[in-house]
Amino acid sequence: MSVKLPAELRDLIESGPLAHLTTLNADGSPQASVIWIGLDGDDVVSGHLGRYQKVRNVERDPRVVLSFEAPRRPGVVMAEHAVLYATASVEPSDATWDLLNGLHKVYVDPAGEFPAPRKPGFVLRYRVDRIGGMGPWAAA
Amino acid sequence: MSVKLPAELRDLIESGPLAHLTTLNADGSPQASVIWIGLDGDDVVSGHLGRYQKVRNVERDPRVVLSFEAPRRPGVVMAEHAVLYATASVEPSDATWDLLNGLHKVYVDPAGEFPAPRKPGFVLRYRVDRIGGMGPWAAA
Repeated sequence: MSVKLPAELRDLIESGPLAHLTTLNADGSPQASVIWIGLDGDDVVSGHLGRYQKVRNVERDPRVVLSFEAPRRPGVVMAEHAVLYATASVEPSDATWDLLNGLHKVYVDPAGEFPAPRKPGFVLRYRVDRIGGMGPWAAA
Repeated sequence: MSVKLPAELRDLIESGPLAHLTTLNADGSPQASVIWIGLDGDDVVSGHLGRYQKVRNVERDPRVVLSFEAPRRPGVVMAEHAVLYATASVEPSDATWDLLNGLHKVYVDPAGEFPAPRKPGFVLRYRVDRIGGMGPWAAA
């Protein structure tokens, strides 16, 4: 059963925070990548133009965590951030470049185009199972 | 064998980046926390006033990853960040509060004091096995 994302969390995701994705290697050790994320309904999604380690890891074990920060506020001790525990799936997709191009407009340049050749790739879809962290989105 | 930390990475750590720490739960799933980190020689360290889940996880399985961002630069597509694959250990320590108080000066307020009662706790020590990410510290 996936979690409905609170409005404040949706707003944070749509503001373009770098997301720290942890997947699990074959030996059970953690693997981390810093990625762009977007929303598709109550799922979080990311795009990848190659079958990278994180994609292969998700194919083997869908248990992942995404964490990202809210803008830091001077003088605040407990910095706001979100931790999303999720079940991920891999979708080979011809629309991967379009997803990345849309995210590029959020993360890099509203007027620019994603600077990689247009080609098929993989969409990682994260069904959020539990929300943690520090902020209005975190369970008490 | 631990890795010697490049000067640029040491500088980044000492600038006070929020670190995303992933540990492994008993069932092998990833657990993430956003924490303060500091340096002790070539080790990274963090302080914790309670025996929290991440501390208990490290006691069981020392394989962790720390990831953190360099300041974001407008218009840059591949945002600089560091990923430290590390072997962690738990040290019960009377100096935990002092470590946190020192980090509070970096992360929150150079003139302030860490706003928690002074008490013993736990220092997590991270022996860095491999450095990844994007930046001058990342292996090619």
